[in-house]
Amino acid sequence: MRIEILCTGDEILTGKTINTNYSHMARRLVEVDLGVTWGTVVGDDREALRAAFREAARRADVVIVNGGLGPTVDDLSQEMAAEAAGVPLVLHEPWLARMEAFYASRNRPMPPNNRKQAMLPQGAEFIDNPIGTACGFAVTIGDARFYFTPGVPREMHRMLDEQIIPRLLAMEGRAGVTRLKRFHSFGIGESRADQMLDGLEAMAPEGAVKLGFQAHYPQLETKLAARAADSAALEAILAPLEAEVRRRLGNFIVAEDAQSLEGAVIAALGEGTLAVAETLTGGGIAARLVQVPGAETRFRRGLVLPPMETNGATALAQAAKLRAESGASHALAVLAAVEKGGGRIAIGLVDGGGEVTREALLVGDRERVRLGAAEMGLDVLRRRLQGLPVDEAVDFERKA
Amino acid sequence: MRIEILCTGDEILTGKTINTNYSHMARRLVEVDLGVTWGTVVGDDREALRAAFREAARRADVVIVNGGLGPTVDDLSQEMAAEAAGVPLVLHEPWLARMEAFYASRNRPMPPNNRKQAMLPQGAEFIDNPIGTACGFAVTIGDARFYFTPGVPREMHRMLDEQIIPRLLAMEGRAGVTRLKRFHSFGIGESRADQMLDGLEAMAPEGAVKLGFQAHYPQLETKLAARAADSAALEAILAPLEAEVRRRLGNFIVAEDAQSLEGAVIAALGEGTLAVAETLTGGGIAARLVQVPGAETRFRRGLVLPPMETNGATALAQAAKLRAESGASHALAVLAAVEKGGGRIAIGLVDGGGEVTREALLVGDRERVRLGAAEMGLDVLRRRLQGLPVDEAVDFERKA
Repeated sequence: MRIEILCTGDEILTGKTINTNYSHMARRLVEVDLGVTWGTVVGDDREALRAAFREAARRADVVIVNGGLGPTVDDLSQEMAAEAAGVPLVLHEPWLARMEAFYASRNRPMPPNNRKQAMLPQGAEFIDNPIGTACGFAVTIGDARFYFTPGVPREMHRMLDEQIIPRLLAMEGRAGVTRLKRFHSFGIGESRADQMLDGLEAMAPEGAVKLGFQAHYPQLETKLAARAADSAALEAILAPLEAEVRRRLGNFIVAEDAQSLEGAVIAALGEGTLAVAETLTGGGIAARLVQVPGAETRFRRGLVLPPMETNGATALAQAAKLRAESGASHALAVLAAVEKGGGRIAIGLVDGGGEVTREALLVGDRERVRLGAAEMGLDVLRRRLQGLPVDEAVDFERKA
Repeated sequence: MRIEILCTGDEILTGKTINTNYSHMARRLVEVDLGVTWGTVVGDDREALRAAFREAARRADVVIVNGGLGPTVDDLSQEMAAEAAGVPLVLHEPWLARMEAFYASRNRPMPPNNRKQAMLPQGAEFIDNPIGTACGFAVTIGDARFYFTPGVPREMHRMLDEQIIPRLLAMEGRAGVTRLKRFHSFGIGESRADQMLDGLEAMAPEGAVKLGFQAHYPQLETKLAARAADSAALEAILAPLEAEVRRRLGNFIVAEDAQSLEGAVIAALGEGTLAVAETLTGGGIAARLVQVPGAETRFRRGLVLPPMETNGATALAQAAKLRAESGASHALAVLAAVEKGGGRIAIGLVDGGGEVTREALLVGDRERVRLGAAEMGLDVLRRRLQGLPVDEAVDFERKA
């Protein structure tokens, strides 16, 4: 099935807004093995939209259109869809009622402009938007099925996952439910992870699970995109693969799904409290921890220090001093210094049970050393809290 | 002139890489008043490239192609350009010599694959890449002129500005040199800045300067895109407008061009030294300051504290304590707390000359309050160092 993505809007066309909607849609389609064959960007312009619809209809089986469903005059998607499908726009009464109820629940009158958002091409398939006023819809233009989605990212994400991808899978005669399982690891590069997970897909029925990776240095995201006839079958397929990924990637997995490394640290900290001292990362470690909901009650003190000698003994001394000063149960010191071709990291951690240190030489430029130092510091803390060894070598490390 | 952007590559098509090259190119074209009418994304696929070249050639006068100039087998741009132009690929000897010299200067042999990067369509216009091994080139396909650019962002940025935009302006019979002057401000929203700069473009010869804005909360970027026959004329046109922007936006301008607010702070600090305490921003202020080159010798201590009473007196007490402990000449405390509908900010600053406080209520969600607090804290420091009032109201503030 040839699937295209057509993004509309002057903000996107002129580069004022970076087109993250495109990359999100494309990634999701690839993850469920539908793929994408072409992307187009046009502005809020009737002639351009007309041409883009015509050309996409000629090339593709399915076109997902994003944007142009708003209440203002430059939102043209419904109008141009109706023209291209050769039908008039008609009022979709249920959606108008939904919008009116939405506004009424907030004790506000519905602006008259919003009525435009309930005008759909005659005969269009209605597609629900449970969290916004721009409903989606589908029409056939030429031989292609066009799905229209809102430009607001969270509305589009949900409509794509809950409404559109299931329809596309059904068009291909594929099973009904999909799920994306994600593992976040630190310390394993993409090509090594690929080797470590060799043969994993073959543990599931053919085509049921697709393995993928996305590197955001210093983390690697490992993804299992699964589909099955129903939720029970999906669970039966995924469970052994999830266990296998955990077994093979082992201690390098720092978090799963929506959890973050810093979230895992705060969760593992339990009733403990935390203080952090850092040099090159300049507050970056504290900033990540403090963003975790609930962290404010666990975080006692952060300290950003000027450059100093970067070795385990100094890091440990800083951590011990910070623990005494702050009264926190766990004190972490992450020292880093940029050197030719990379950087030197020294981590010291003191808690009620004792102390650990970790030293490493990382490869990469200043920015990579900063990111790597923050990650390694948080990971040492996670490993200590979870009772794991803190000194397993990571792929970004070089020999002394 | 109808200008299209055609981005190639599987990483972009599948969403694995966010297409920031597209947005950069589009923004730059809009800034010099060339504009962009259409964007296309296709993968590393002969049939798709063939179709994309054909369709773009039919619609556009100029097509800027990005990517596919690398040394590997999936880099297809030269091959498909030659096919579409109906000419063979021929070796561009000067570029081969340049690449060989490049590798020789690094005492490395040139990998044989790189020879492919010197194979250009016969008759193509060579376009220099002074910082990489992928040269650009231009060919005519149908009635459109196609410019091929490398996918590496910094190589593309430079080629676009130095080589391609001047050629496009010349095609339009426009003057030879362009410049983009940028002002970064904090505290003025886009629509108010637009009003404050009303009539500015009219101070220059018609069409010579284009005023634009880009909001990245909490900063606003005000841009003057200017063009003239030569550098002297450009300078003569821009100088009075730059002075006028500085006069009208006044103390709200925190930096210009490549400088940042934190860079301006470190520059204004001179021989002084700095310590920062922060609550909600969790190290974010320290992290911004420490990233400025040279800041490591000026930054004495950063402190991330748990939530506390957020008022001017507390902030001042924290700043005074921090100054005493750290020995820094300037101590800044930025306290923030999220409240219903926004957040409360309290800033205290103590230096050799005395002390100042600033309190504010900001509108927006938690993330906006964090960003606004960090920005306002740094801006109070900048204003103090530059001898400006620290309490001018900003647009994101609400009444108590």
